[in-house]
Amino acid sequence: MKKLYEKKRNIKIIIAYDGAGYNGWQRLGKQGATKTIQSSIEQSLMQILDEKIEIVASGRTDAGVHALAQVANFYTTTSMNLREIKSKLNEILPVDIRILDVCEVPLSFHSRYDAISKEYEYRIDLRNKPDVFTRAYVLSYPEELNLQAMKKAALYMLGEHDFAGFSSKMKDERTTIKTIEAIHFECTGEQLFIRIKGDGFLYNMVRIIVGTLLEVGTGKRTPESILEVLKTRNRSKAGYTVSSKGLFLKQVWYPL
Amino acid sequence: MKKLYEKKRNIKIIIAYDGAGYNGWQRLGKQGATKTIQSSIEQSLMQILDEKIEIVASGRTDAGVHALAQVANFYTTTSMNLREIKSKLNEILPVDIRILDVCEVPLSFHSRYDAISKEYEYRIDLRNKPDVFTRAYVLSYPEELNLQAMKKAALYMLGEHDFAGFSSKMKDERTTIKTIEAIHFECTGEQLFIRIKGDGFLYNMVRIIVGTLLEVGTGKRTPESILEVLKTRNRSKAGYTVSSKGLFLKQVWYPL
Repeated sequence: MKKLYEKKRNIKIIIAYDGAGYNGWQRLGKQGATKTIQSSIEQSLMQILDEKIEIVASGRTDAGVHALAQVANFYTTTSMNLREIKSKLNEILPVDIRILDVCEVPLSFHSRYDAISKEYEYRIDLRNKPDVFTRAYVLSYPEELNLQAMKKAALYMLGEHDFAGFSSKMKDERTTIKTIEAIHFECTGEQLFIRIKGDGFLYNMVRIIVGTLLEVGTGKRTPESILEVLKTRNRSKAGYTVSSKGLFLKQVWYPL
Repeated sequence: MKKLYEKKRNIKIIIAYDGAGYNGWQRLGKQGATKTIQSSIEQSLMQILDEKIEIVASGRTDAGVHALAQVANFYTTTSMNLREIKSKLNEILPVDIRILDVCEVPLSFHSRYDAISKEYEYRIDLRNKPDVFTRAYVLSYPEELNLQAMKKAALYMLGEHDFAGFSSKMKDERTTIKTIEAIHFECTGEQLFIRIKGDGFLYNMVRIIVGTLLEVGTGKRTPESILEVLKTRNRSKAGYTVSSKGLFLKQVWYPL
């Protein structure tokens, strides 16, 4: 393996993006055929470094999903300093993608394989009409919610389970067994933020978990119905998939 | 005067709006000829209450200026309760205008004449590239600022002065003498919020004050140059007019 990146540097970047205008993280097919976060960053890097660049992220966020601090890495032969890479990137990247940090990491570092935990945040506006300044980044959900019932339902999800029932598709997944480490509710009465931390997430898993929790909150289902979804692994037993516009990848953890 | 609003109720509303899509507060000419905050709210009220409504605000915000809590009032013959007025208004108003509160006030209350103080907030992003989620609501200003010099300049503005030199036009103004009660700087290093409270503001006054303070912050002018603008009443001696996108009407005060 070492030969592949001989003489090369491995650069880690931390990225914030407003996903509204993108078809998700992953580059699809030919460069530029679809507007994705990955292809935008790769094109900018190639322009700056004048070499072909492929970047790998901690995970592929879906279309419309935002990131407060996505982590990615790429190999390069450039001798350009990190500060310069950061400022040039921010200069040519569009206004909805911002590089927060650029640092050099050991050649063995891999953004996806090395990630040990990820945290997502889902933002819900509970008012009859959402706040005018944050409306683009929330799910508008003007309902009375039973938070106690939602917290009880969340407890059933904690720990290691087969989350196949909380996923949209199962193909390509090596395993549907994941560990949820924490589900945290922060509620002001006007807005509810739900933070979910785990060792990995299946396709649409966070959005289906939130949809299911909201159905518990409005009394459409019981907290105990979670057990049924986990046991049967049946997607149709779980709640609906909430919109991507309220979803943020908040943090990614790596071993020290 | 009393005859004009005989048997009528006087309703006060508190409004938040994202001003980006509007040609300011004031209705201009024929209804609907230009999209303004006032005409949007009046049209919604007429639809709900089925009578001609005119609303008066604490002041006319310029094109593109936002409000966290604008105050306005209108007379009506309706017997509809306040809760219903609020929820119906929010239902039909566009997503960028939200009614925060509706209450009934004495017939003599007048949003503009009774206002004793107003506070504006100007938001500046100092990073090389602004935050992707708040970029629409800040002035991007990636410069090193000398905050001490800016604070010194602000001190010269405090109190009662003739602010003609800090105003774009003088016609229609009864007086150019205004009192600035406070100028507050809140700086995180990444963002700078400047809050200006006064008994009234001339056309473009907040934006010219902020532009002038920024020129002090970058060393383009001295704090003492403020004295010259106040003394000469000459607009060309003051700084540039900053963009409206970072400007928020934050609060309006009335006598208890």
